[in-house]
Amino acid sequence: MNSSILPTINALKQPTGEGWVEQAISNLNTILLDHSLCERKAASAALNMIFRYPSNTKMVRELTKIAREELEHFEQVNQWLEKKNIPLGTLPPPPYGAALKAQIRTKEPERFLDSLLISGLIEARSHERLGLLAIHCPEVELGKFYRSLMASEARHFGTYWVLADTYFERNVFMERLEELAAVESEILSVLHPEPRIHS
Amino acid sequence: MNSSILPTINALKQPTGEGWVEQAISNLNTILLDHSLCERKAASAALNMIFRYPSNTKMVRELTKIAREELEHFEQVNQWLEKKNIPLGTLPPPPYGAALKAQIRTKEPERFLDSLLISGLIEARSHERLGLLAIHCPEVELGKFYRSLMASEARHFGTYWVLADTYFERNVFMERLEELAAVESEILSVLHPEPRIHS
Repeated sequence: MNSSILPTINALKQPTGEGWVEQAISNLNTILLDHSLCERKAASAALNMIFRYPSNTKMVRELTKIAREELEHFEQVNQWLEKKNIPLGTLPPPPYGAALKAQIRTKEPERFLDSLLISGLIEARSHERLGLLAIHCPEVELGKFYRSLMASEARHFGTYWVLADTYFERNVFMERLEELAAVESEILSVLHPEPRIHS
Repeated sequence: MNSSILPTINALKQPTGEGWVEQAISNLNTILLDHSLCERKAASAALNMIFRYPSNTKMVRELTKIAREELEHFEQVNQWLEKKNIPLGTLPPPPYGAALKAQIRTKEPERFLDSLLISGLIEARSHERLGLLAIHCPEVELGKFYRSLMASEARHFGTYWVLADTYFERNVFMERLEELAAVESEILSVLHPEPRIHS
């Protein structure tokens, strides 16, 4: 698999393997529906953080922008579903989200930090996987669409990183980012049998 | 109070009284902060309905648009807060939201219908009250801002009405709308002591 032309976010500990690419390309309709659900969940997660930390002005400003963009992408993915006559609906989620959430420590301010870092890691992984879809997708237009979303995912990772850097000491959060990134790669090291963006 | 020049949404059973206007105009900073929280809650409510009824394509499409607009307004209100050096934060909510939510029947499809109608009524009331702020606000620019938001609130009421009309028999939902509108006016008939958009 030639992924050397892809920009990668170096926070990720392990790259995605070929198994995921094969699974995704063989199930593009399911991947598209799951992608729609991912965009909605990303918007909800940003709104939930705004709800939980309403006084963190810089965070509120940045996460509002992210939530707006995620909803714009949600709309765009749904237009693709409509174009392909794939009915909107839901899918059982892969273990990824819940397994990452389980890493969030319950006490503040650790909870805030872990939430920022995990959101950032999910953006980084989405950036990598949309890039793989962009390269390997046999449908040219759909591939272009995936490529068009990559810049936002990278920017969102950057926003979460900058927010962590705003509210926490750099050496503290970088150490925690390392730990969480190792867990994130570990979760994905066994391919989930159902095709998903984060299977 | 000259509110005759305001367009009103006739779903509302009782107009807002002068007591609310006086309370709001005397506490513009608190009203602005509460308004910000209302916009965020409206976005969350739309997203929650998308999460609950993911297969209702028309609803998903329309509520995504609404959620995006609410977030845009949230951003705009927050810019006003920043301009006035009012720190972002939270406020104890008035009883309005919880009292309306308590009206939502638990069984489907009644739950879906009641959720649409209550969201619509909240938009209709917001439309009326932002209009009153537009007229009575002593700060010209802020008054213009309130006026600029009115059209969206009215449109959102219309969207919820059309969605109810899409998924339910008109005579069924109009009867229920009457009942809920009566409750909505009843809740607001006693002015809540804390200044809020829905006090």
